[in-house]
Amino acid sequence: MSIDILPKALTALIDDFGNLPGVGPRTAERYAYAVLRRNPKSAKQLAHSLDQLHDRVKTCPKTFALIDSDDDVSPLYADSNRNKKVVCVVEEPLDIVAIERTGQFLGTYHVLGGVISPIDNIGPEQLHIPELIERIKTDDVQEIIIATNASVEGESTALFLQRYIQEAGLNTTITRLARGIPVGVDLEYADQITLTHALEGRKQL
Amino acid sequence: MSIDILPKALTALIDDFGNLPGVGPRTAERYAYAVLRRNPKSAKQLAHSLDQLHDRVKTCPKTFALIDSDDDVSPLYADSNRNKKVVCVVEEPLDIVAIERTGQFLGTYHVLGGVISPIDNIGPEQLHIPELIERIKTDDVQEIIIATNASVEGESTALFLQRYIQEAGLNTTITRLARGIPVGVDLEYADQITLTHALEGRKQL
Repeated sequence: MSIDILPKALTALIDDFGNLPGVGPRTAERYAYAVLRRNPKSAKQLAHSLDQLHDRVKTCPKTFALIDSDDDVSPLYADSNRNKKVVCVVEEPLDIVAIERTGQFLGTYHVLGGVISPIDNIGPEQLHIPELIERIKTDDVQEIIIATNASVEGESTALFLQRYIQEAGLNTTITRLARGIPVGVDLEYADQITLTHALEGRKQL
Repeated sequence: MSIDILPKALTALIDDFGNLPGVGPRTAERYAYAVLRRNPKSAKQLAHSLDQLHDRVKTCPKTFALIDSDDDVSPLYADSNRNKKVVCVVEEPLDIVAIERTGQFLGTYHVLGGVISPIDNIGPEQLHIPELIERIKTDDVQEIIIATNASVEGESTALFLQRYIQEAGLNTTITRLARGIPVGVDLEYADQITLTHALEGRKQL
């Protein structure tokens, strides 16, 4: 329908924007129109960024974080100020950004590349678990902080990982991010499971 | 900060996405990561659409709708099935899409290109009002449907337009989109002004 109403180039862009996660037709229209109204240079700039993306980004062979294609390993891992003996295990590369924002973590990261999810046909062998075991050995890792998401899959992946590391005969300390009431949330709106975790994990003052 | 954590090409794309309306840093990250995880071809495709956009889209000199750069006038205006004697006046080109979605309007459109807004330094002379007057004369327009937004600026632009057309000595019928309770909204949640409009505009059954 819109083929007649809007110019083809705009319709094409709306369709492409509509492929982004969580972007419906109206939002895609809004984005496309915003780009059209702005300076053509900023459209070309976004085009350039997109065009370069895949050639300029690769996965770190050690930590599986995203890195510049001309880097050998993740700059965080290469940084001598970072403690390689503490490894925070996350599901996806962007989880690193979230943890780095706290400014509180001075260890290194290991990206699993997903979670175990039988429905999606993702088993442990699709994740970067053997490479983690390898790192524990070569870097003499003292603590593994499992920071998978608080989803069912995140939980079962954490459990699997814990057993896997223990069965490999490694005596690394394994920890998990604390669960509890997030900042700014009223008790009455907290769900049962979160409250249970908050009670179990209570701290003496 | 993120310069170190994420590869430069990804950071650049996140920044560019962050320039889209209503897109904050987290959403921009999500978009960029989604593009990265997908086929490089779809990134190149979006890049291509963006690159072409400004060269392939222009404004119709008659209706000020957006059209293909190789079209002379808006296809809707050129369509002989469309009644040129009924003109729906809208603020922005995308408003046409919204009205076309109803499938109920068989007239033509005229895009004002904005609304009168003294704060933003936009007066009537920045809008395509003289061209509308011209169209009313040449196309012998019988009805002007003012479909500006229900904002303060939309209302005052509608009022200005009405007076302007009348003062130009044109005896075209001028109408305005009905105001009232939108579908699916409970009375108790409707605001006072909308309810007042709904009462004033009540219809005999």
